[in-house]
Amino acid sequence: MSKSVAVEKALTRFHEQARLRAAYRHATMILQYDADTTMPVAGASILGDTMGVLAEKTYEALVNDDTRETLAVLLAAKDEVPRHIYREAEELQRKINKISVVPAKEYGDYERAVTHATHVWRQAKLAADFNMFAPYLQAVVDYAARFAKYYDSSRPVYDVLLEDYEQGMTMAKLDDFFGVVRQELTPLIARIAKAPQPDTAFLNCSYPLPQQEQLAHYLMNILCLPRDRCAIGTTEHPFTAGANNHDVRITTHYYEQDMLSGMFTVIHEGGHALYMLHMADELNGTLLAKGASSGIHESQSRFFENFIGRSEPFLRFILPKLQELFPTQLKGVTAEQFYHAANRSQPSLIRIHADELTYPLHILIRYELEKQLFAGEIAVADLPQKWNELYQTYLGITPPDDGQGVLQDVHWSNSYFGYFPTYALGSAYAAQFLAAMEHDIDVSGTVAVGDLHPVIDWLKDRLFCFGGVKLPEELLIDITGKPFAPHCYTDYLKHKYSALYGLD
Amino acid sequence: MSKSVAVEKALTRFHEQARLRAAYRHATMILQYDADTTMPVAGASILGDTMGVLAEKTYEALVNDDTRETLAVLLAAKDEVPRHIYREAEELQRKINKISVVPAKEYGDYERAVTHATHVWRQAKLAADFNMFAPYLQAVVDYAARFAKYYDSSRPVYDVLLEDYEQGMTMAKLDDFFGVVRQELTPLIARIAKAPQPDTAFLNCSYPLPQQEQLAHYLMNILCLPRDRCAIGTTEHPFTAGANNHDVRITTHYYEQDMLSGMFTVIHEGGHALYMLHMADELNGTLLAKGASSGIHESQSRFFENFIGRSEPFLRFILPKLQELFPTQLKGVTAEQFYHAANRSQPSLIRIHADELTYPLHILIRYELEKQLFAGEIAVADLPQKWNELYQTYLGITPPDDGQGVLQDVHWSNSYFGYFPTYALGSAYAAQFLAAMEHDIDVSGTVAVGDLHPVIDWLKDRLFCFGGVKLPEELLIDITGKPFAPHCYTDYLKHKYSALYGLD
Repeated sequence: MSKSVAVEKALTRFHEQARLRAAYRHATMILQYDADTTMPVAGASILGDTMGVLAEKTYEALVNDDTRETLAVLLAAKDEVPRHIYREAEELQRKINKISVVPAKEYGDYERAVTHATHVWRQAKLAADFNMFAPYLQAVVDYAARFAKYYDSSRPVYDVLLEDYEQGMTMAKLDDFFGVVRQELTPLIARIAKAPQPDTAFLNCSYPLPQQEQLAHYLMNILCLPRDRCAIGTTEHPFTAGANNHDVRITTHYYEQDMLSGMFTVIHEGGHALYMLHMADELNGTLLAKGASSGIHESQSRFFENFIGRSEPFLRFILPKLQELFPTQLKGVTAEQFYHAANRSQPSLIRIHADELTYPLHILIRYELEKQLFAGEIAVADLPQKWNELYQTYLGITPPDDGQGVLQDVHWSNSYFGYFPTYALGSAYAAQFLAAMEHDIDVSGTVAVGDLHPVIDWLKDRLFCFGGVKLPEELLIDITGKPFAPHCYTDYLKHKYSALYGLD
Repeated sequence: MSKSVAVEKALTRFHEQARLRAAYRHATMILQYDADTTMPVAGASILGDTMGVLAEKTYEALVNDDTRETLAVLLAAKDEVPRHIYREAEELQRKINKISVVPAKEYGDYERAVTHATHVWRQAKLAADFNMFAPYLQAVVDYAARFAKYYDSSRPVYDVLLEDYEQGMTMAKLDDFFGVVRQELTPLIARIAKAPQPDTAFLNCSYPLPQQEQLAHYLMNILCLPRDRCAIGTTEHPFTAGANNHDVRITTHYYEQDMLSGMFTVIHEGGHALYMLHMADELNGTLLAKGASSGIHESQSRFFENFIGRSEPFLRFILPKLQELFPTQLKGVTAEQFYHAANRSQPSLIRIHADELTYPLHILIRYELEKQLFAGEIAVADLPQKWNELYQTYLGITPPDDGQGVLQDVHWSNSYFGYFPTYALGSAYAAQFLAAMEHDIDVSGTVAVGDLHPVIDWLKDRLFCFGGVKLPEELLIDITGKPFAPHCYTDYLKHKYSALYGLD
């Protein structure tokens, strides 16, 4: 079908507008990356001014009559518009709608409230003093709830919040998912907590940093991360940032007493990086370059970290390399000992240090609290006690203080309500993708020889290349032939950990 | 005097306009810094698009009726406008005038010619093949000459080019300066070339990098570079970049076989950083934050590198610290041996590796060639032969090939004609500043105990704080009581090197 003149014109205008948006997005991303990795701390204030100007310019480039008219034409001509452009138009319109309903003054107040809350949270965590944090958290919670009502007053607040990170996700679906997690995993976790544990002493000796750096570079090669398009640096809290599919940066950390932490960090961030590196060129600079959702992005980092990196074939493959780099530390360690040690499971207090099996329970706890909080069933003041009760219920442990409990994560002070579930969804999606992948290729076999090309190519064609063109549910159906199936995940964990701990 | 309403209004508008300019300048600087230090190479192309948009926006923020009218009001009201704003208005007007006279199309062609020339220069240098480079250099030379005529057809081309880096500088002044350099230094260099040389073997053994990093951090403390406002990183070609006086970054390199190279790099870049860190707050984000000129900036890096760092009191002070870090490498080395070794002088081919005494002759040679080239006295094709003749005349050596001769520096391919002289001017300015400083404080005494605070405070009040508010000549007169006096520099070098080599 030949395109109408109006659509042709709108496409041309769209590309002109997109050029500006891409530049502001690129600049903002690099400035943030620089602030997170390099900028001296005193630079924050003036950077704030510059970021403010870029935010204004980004806003002006998005909210204006020209863009409004262009989007209207494109969104009314689905059949005449390339799919990725139609999808970006949808996302832009969604973003404009959200921006438009919040008064600018109120949005500024909210941003200041978040900044204050994050600042106070840091002190409160150190002091293990929830009361210090409570009023600031209350303010952020109030803003989040109010904005959610602005966006869509017809739906429950928490459903609206969930959509920010995972389009199509609802409490109904998460209740189902976490119900399966609760039912299937808590009995296993309780049994393992009483089972004999593998020896992990050899993991806690000293692993010199220069060799850990060599390992990181070796892992980048194994993960097929091309050095001319992917940089590696170090930060206390590792992350991945991508400017476009030609410029992605991962960061890691090196702990002398915990070599595996750095190793799995590189593999985890490498998963995020592969997703960004293999998005289609046409998505560069667009809103769709961020991927399908937080959960889908996390599915890729966790796929590589846990489903590949902590698998028996991979650990068997990598051990000789590790023994070459750390001959005294790993002398005489067998592949079986190594596999067991790297997969030791034990209920613990801190989410980011949790093992693969107990991890989703940390998320379940946060999900239940957020849900109740935004339903008005509990108050901010109740959070510490409820937190501790849930940790006792699901993991059989209680934090000694709130610093190691309800105050441990930065997310709430940042107003990231609805984000936590994506961490568990990521692993569950990954399990479902792995099951589909195993129909097509011998995953264990190719991982066992350290060749990840077939795995990456499979994901590239079905998932990476689409970025945010397809929504999460659409990806699941297209790739696995069915909607989200939580049992895939719990079956995988039950199978793996029953075998590891010799339970039937 | 109370300000007129028109001036008050213009000042308000000026601040609004300045906010945009500052943000674009800040973002551009960080993007360039990131590209120089972190960005994977494949990111260059899309970064180019983003830089292009920022350049357009910078242009739009500068060249428009609102700015034109504002500047006209401010520049007509010198007595009513704060000095730093008046000076920035002058600089902005100067910049606008320059931008306006070159047709946009021609400027784009010029930028492409520079990109090509730089690309070809890299290959030509590796191949030591000047003929490969000659046509591209010719194109860049032609553009530079044409643009200089656009800017000011009433003055010789090379005088116009010099002004880009050093306002107020002319061939007449440089002829005088380099005349003194030639006359005073060439006989001394010739004598030293034949004199017995100090033992430097202990400088060429292996100095482990972790200890060199420790040394860099120690030097930052000695240089009073606050870590919350000044970061340090590593790059092949070290440089200093400042976003504002709260965010400065220096880079260095570490060579296992050449510890002193890293040490003097940190001190050199530290001098640039101190200048940026101590500019007045009101200059942040303005054109004046770049300093008074390239020569004045270089005067500070070379002041700290050579006049402080390579001085006998400093080297005597730092030696015990170095022996603590490198006990076997520097065992038994005396302060006198160390001072002599660190100041060994010998004619050499490569400018960036030249010692303090022979360095200005490398610049003199480039100055004479640039001057003759733009006067039409020599052609591009003559450069290799002329280069080799001048090296023989002034340094008594001839490059074995053009890669180690006329092709060694990137500047010409970048169209930085008129820049080289600022390197020598920097040292000469520094000598003049040092002489004035010695009237007020016991420089040797305070350097001998490793306390640079008095030196830095002296420079801060007289030089650093002004940024580009004062022009170079004004700074020289205000600080030293007289205009540029080249003999200060040659007297310092003759005194230092005659003593080092035991010549009367």
